[in-house]
Amino acid sequence: MIFEKICLVGVGLIGSSIGHAVKKHGLAGHVCGLELTTDLVARAQKTGAVDSATTEPKVALDGANLVILCVPVGAIAAAIQHIAPFMQPNMILSDVGSVKKSVLNDMEKYAPKFARFIPAHPLAGTENSGPESGYATLFQNRYCIITPPENCHEKSLQRVVELWQGMGAMVETMSAEHHDKVLAVTSHLPHLIAYTIVGTAAELEERLKREGISDNDNTIAKGEIIKYSATGFRDFTRIAASDPTMWRDVFLHNGPAVLDFLGRLQEDIAIMSRAIRDKDGEKLYKWFEKTRAIRRSINEMKQDFKDDVK
Amino acid sequence: MIFEKICLVGVGLIGSSIGHAVKKHGLAGHVCGLELTTDLVARAQKTGAVDSATTEPKVALDGANLVILCVPVGAIAAAIQHIAPFMQPNMILSDVGSVKKSVLNDMEKYAPKFARFIPAHPLAGTENSGPESGYATLFQNRYCIITPPENCHEKSLQRVVELWQGMGAMVETMSAEHHDKVLAVTSHLPHLIAYTIVGTAAELEERLKREGISDNDNTIAKGEIIKYSATGFRDFTRIAASDPTMWRDVFLHNGPAVLDFLGRLQEDIAIMSRAIRDKDGEKLYKWFEKTRAIRRSINEMKQDFKDDVK
Repeated sequence: MIFEKICLVGVGLIGSSIGHAVKKHGLAGHVCGLELTTDLVARAQKTGAVDSATTEPKVALDGANLVILCVPVGAIAAAIQHIAPFMQPNMILSDVGSVKKSVLNDMEKYAPKFARFIPAHPLAGTENSGPESGYATLFQNRYCIITPPENCHEKSLQRVVELWQGMGAMVETMSAEHHDKVLAVTSHLPHLIAYTIVGTAAELEERLKREGISDNDNTIAKGEIIKYSATGFRDFTRIAASDPTMWRDVFLHNGPAVLDFLGRLQEDIAIMSRAIRDKDGEKLYKWFEKTRAIRRSINEMKQDFKDDVK
Repeated sequence: MIFEKICLVGVGLIGSSIGHAVKKHGLAGHVCGLELTTDLVARAQKTGAVDSATTEPKVALDGANLVILCVPVGAIAAAIQHIAPFMQPNMILSDVGSVKKSVLNDMEKYAPKFARFIPAHPLAGTENSGPESGYATLFQNRYCIITPPENCHEKSLQRVVELWQGMGAMVETMSAEHHDKVLAVTSHLPHLIAYTIVGTAAELEERLKREGISDNDNTIAKGEIIKYSATGFRDFTRIAASDPTMWRDVFLHNGPAVLDFLGRLQEDIAIMSRAIRDKDGEKLYKWFEKTRAIRRSINEMKQDFKDDVK
């Protein structure tokens, strides 16, 4: 047992999965879920992911050694303000947000100075949300990136590392700034592009109609796009089905890094576009050839799991 | 048995898979592979996908009722010229190319007038290539789109439909023009974007170095992108590992349709980019919300197979 009591602020997919994993591996004496409505409290309890659940922050935090904020990044500030009056000295404050610099800023701004901030980001998720979608093995063999602030409390960091390792995760630590840059490339930009291309396709039928295109050769029905989606498009729809609230918050809180890399991508799209227009087969071939190497490296890392989208 | 003899021009992933499927289901009396080198002939024979293989078009076509060109779209014209002198009246000429209008043009330009053109495009493939990568069930439960020319020979069309159905495929027919538009959206554009984003990421480490960025927070190693690829990026690498020759040819032969839809996508990328810059959460949320519906439709269609990338 690493903690006597863990308080999960928010019992959605990630919160309930932490609850299941902590209980399965006996990592805490008690897991309490804090929710905003009695309906959500009842749903959290029904899943068995928590030992208790309540809408009262005072009750939830009482005796807790670790508080994990399991809410979208945009709700972190409000969540901290909600619990701040009931936090006790030595309490560890952590989270699971997909952006880390803004979370650290919110912690420093709204939480009591005595709280020990250990932000974390488990790289795991599914396209489902809500307390019923969680399961104990969600973090198994996944990375969890911890972004300790400067002058962080070393012993608290160690305990949070042990907690995630106890749930089966592979823990890495780095600065919040670096995390936000790396994830902008590996996660935020791919999600933005997937969302955009799926949206473009979703509106195409209507748009072509509005443009007055009505002949059989040139009209494209939404049903056809769905029908023939296995040819490439479908790969984008999986990540474009991720939770809209979570992703809105990611882009609102990691805008500059995402826009930087998006700018670079747009330059490359323009280069590819020009190569197609010029029928420059050599340039296209060279580009398509080099991207295979990345796939091979990923396959070799055996990181080829299914069902993770966060 | 539908055909006495089928000649496969090119015994790569698709050619060898047709061979395996035809033999498994007893759809032809004899399958002959035509290859360019004795080495490729030997490899084709070793797989058991063909009854015979040769570098001699005269031998390969002798007595064949159906010739299927299984080469990249850019090699179709040369392949037709290679076999044209040995084609016999009533022979059906088909193919498996990912672009159909240019193939039909090549057939009309280079094949004898008596040949019966029935172009086809099985929507199936893997990221592997070569005769050893083929297997009999590749087309099982996949769509195969046939794009008969105007005034096509109806009985020949019917036999080709039966062949693909015999290999387990679901056959649809449409005009070559319409095929090229639909596939530009569902397949060609997603591949182009995946290739581009993976290339952008692959060169990032080197590019940042060239830009003089060297602090720990802002440098991003290629190894980190690979390590954390499960967060979204990896979904793009799978289709960006497809055969570079095949895809170069797709973009060289379906340029206008791809560039049209790419232009629409770029407009939407600019709109999303501006929404992020403006911190317009409502616009982002609405966009992310609507794309979920497409995913649901695809899941409902149970088209959610693995390992198909063509």
